[in-house]
Amino acid sequence: MSLQSIKYTRGSLEILDQLLLPGQSKYLVVRGVEDGWKVINKMQVRGAPAIAIVGCLSLAVELNPEEFASKKSLRQEIEGKLNYLVSSRPTAVNMKIAADELISLANDLYNDESVDVAEMKQRFLSATEAMLKKDIADNRAIGAHGARAILQGVAEGSGAPAGSSGSVRVLTHCNTGSLATAGYGTALGVVRQLAELGKLEHVYCTETRPYNQGARLTAYELVHEKFPATLVLDSMVAALLRAKNVAAVVVGADRVASNGDTANKIGTYQIAVVAKHHGVPFYVAAPLTSIDLAIPGGDHIIIEERPDREMTHVGEHRIAAPGINCWNPAFDVTPAALITGIITERGVFKPTELKEAISKLQS
Amino acid sequence: MSLQSIKYTRGSLEILDQLLLPGQSKYLVVRGVEDGWKVINKMQVRGAPAIAIVGCLSLAVELNPEEFASKKSLRQEIEGKLNYLVSSRPTAVNMKIAADELISLANDLYNDESVDVAEMKQRFLSATEAMLKKDIADNRAIGAHGARAILQGVAEGSGAPAGSSGSVRVLTHCNTGSLATAGYGTALGVVRQLAELGKLEHVYCTETRPYNQGARLTAYELVHEKFPATLVLDSMVAALLRAKNVAAVVVGADRVASNGDTANKIGTYQIAVVAKHHGVPFYVAAPLTSIDLAIPGGDHIIIEERPDREMTHVGEHRIAAPGINCWNPAFDVTPAALITGIITERGVFKPTELKEAISKLQS
Repeated sequence: MSLQSIKYTRGSLEILDQLLLPGQSKYLVVRGVEDGWKVINKMQVRGAPAIAIVGCLSLAVELNPEEFASKKSLRQEIEGKLNYLVSSRPTAVNMKIAADELISLANDLYNDESVDVAEMKQRFLSATEAMLKKDIADNRAIGAHGARAILQGVAEGSGAPAGSSGSVRVLTHCNTGSLATAGYGTALGVVRQLAELGKLEHVYCTETRPYNQGARLTAYELVHEKFPATLVLDSMVAALLRAKNVAAVVVGADRVASNGDTANKIGTYQIAVVAKHHGVPFYVAAPLTSIDLAIPGGDHIIIEERPDREMTHVGEHRIAAPGINCWNPAFDVTPAALITGIITERGVFKPTELKEAISKLQS
Repeated sequence: MSLQSIKYTRGSLEILDQLLLPGQSKYLVVRGVEDGWKVINKMQVRGAPAIAIVGCLSLAVELNPEEFASKKSLRQEIEGKLNYLVSSRPTAVNMKIAADELISLANDLYNDESVDVAEMKQRFLSATEAMLKKDIADNRAIGAHGARAILQGVAEGSGAPAGSSGSVRVLTHCNTGSLATAGYGTALGVVRQLAELGKLEHVYCTETRPYNQGARLTAYELVHEKFPATLVLDSMVAALLRAKNVAAVVVGADRVASNGDTANKIGTYQIAVVAKHHGVPFYVAAPLTSIDLAIPGGDHIIIEERPDREMTHVGEHRIAAPGINCWNPAFDVTPAALITGIITERGVFKPTELKEAISKLQS
């Protein structure tokens, strides 16, 4: 069983408090939307899909024992509380999208005269719970497609040779695991799948400055799973690829453009350049929802620049010389030409094939 | 006047306490070899050449006011105290080499019957003081040769175009400045020289995990000098070279092999790969003493692996998940093929020309 950041059964929701990681592993009980709002607002849960799912499940937990006198009162309850949840982190777009979908569903059920109030509640709860299941199922599919592509690439002679058992060493960046998704993970889902197949010889994770998601969160997940794993610094990737027979790099994505250019955590582009230099395949793992065909290429993605303090301090402790300017882009864009394949829940696509493949899947 | 980490006039020595940087700038008075031993042992002074020079100057300060009854007693004093200084940090090879040279000089002066005890002392003090002057003069020469090579490269169209004033943006790694040498610096000496010529548009320095010499020390020097400067993380170099028209990268060297392969602070190799990908010239600044013709190539350089704790902690604060393994090589080797030129105090050499050029200089 892979690390669960969200534990849900009907009527009960708990989340792993990410503010205490990696030092302490403590689950928080979420009893309703008040608790849901708080854990999102305080960033005890993080990662775009996880935020949306925890928000919606907190409503499901609250609705579960309640009795509603009318469909109208249930609809009002759903709409009011979802809008309240959206206010917990206004920049978390996924929560807004999920809220809009569920409000639309509530309206449809309200207008459907064949549905009574009890059925309306049951169907609403099921739809909410389906979001959690779908996210995990999509991640498992990404894992399976990605693991197959990496192993096939190795068999065909790209990248480093596999170990004697056919197992491989892979490198990942930032955190894309159970702690960033509803569960299982995207790029880290590929690593999990390799492990489940008995084909994971070793996984390396980068520290991922300035917020150290690799050292804090990915390393935490890898220790939890007892995977053979090693932490490296962001500066060590080239030395690592030269020394350690790494078969593939697999990273997540914040946004993939129509031409395959990929925005992801700062440092991703550098790893792609270094992978190319060493002839190591470089994969991006991303659910279809991260691929935006409306963006023609990476030049159209605006890179957020974050406060200097993230770089100059660790907690309250200053680590950089006072007075120095900083450049702190949150993301960078990896050109499609450096990407071997984009791993989705529906298969692995070459960047050049992405647009056509996605259009076909959507039609 | 560039930042002085060592302030010396005959009879007086002060050093900038590097343990207090970058928070506090405090000079420590070194009154003799006892103080010299302490500041080296406690790492209040660091950098191989600086350690040797501070050690020897601490002896000069102690000898200066003393009267010696005989050349024999002076010789014994010199030999005993230099051997004591060598014990302050047994791994600091430069202190041992300097001590051996000065002991040999003391023996020569002792055996030279035309020299009396007063002259012996004067000549010994002058030789010691010459070490400081030579190190700074060599660094200034490195700076001049390096700045000329970078500006000439830009004029000839390699790397990014210069700004409207012919000034350039450069990137450096780790700390190679006044805080790592007797003064002025090697790679940072090149940056200083560009600034003195009015040709420094901007200098970027990397954080340089795990010890953050870039964020702590290089950034401190750049702020002190009021150079237009920006700190970036080690993961940002590729994004930086893509976005900011950097004309050249210049780094230091721990050891240069006969074929030009260069061992330097971890992360250097990665920067060289990334510079190559972006067509940015990559220079290594190193005094001739760092070039070892006895080492045929980088494969013969053994890379020290350092304790995990350097990566998992900042001071007493744990930043990585408990239980994670680390890989912590202190250095990496940049193959000669990625190096545009090796900047020495006697000129800039292509790696392929290095062996012949150095042999010629030495003969």
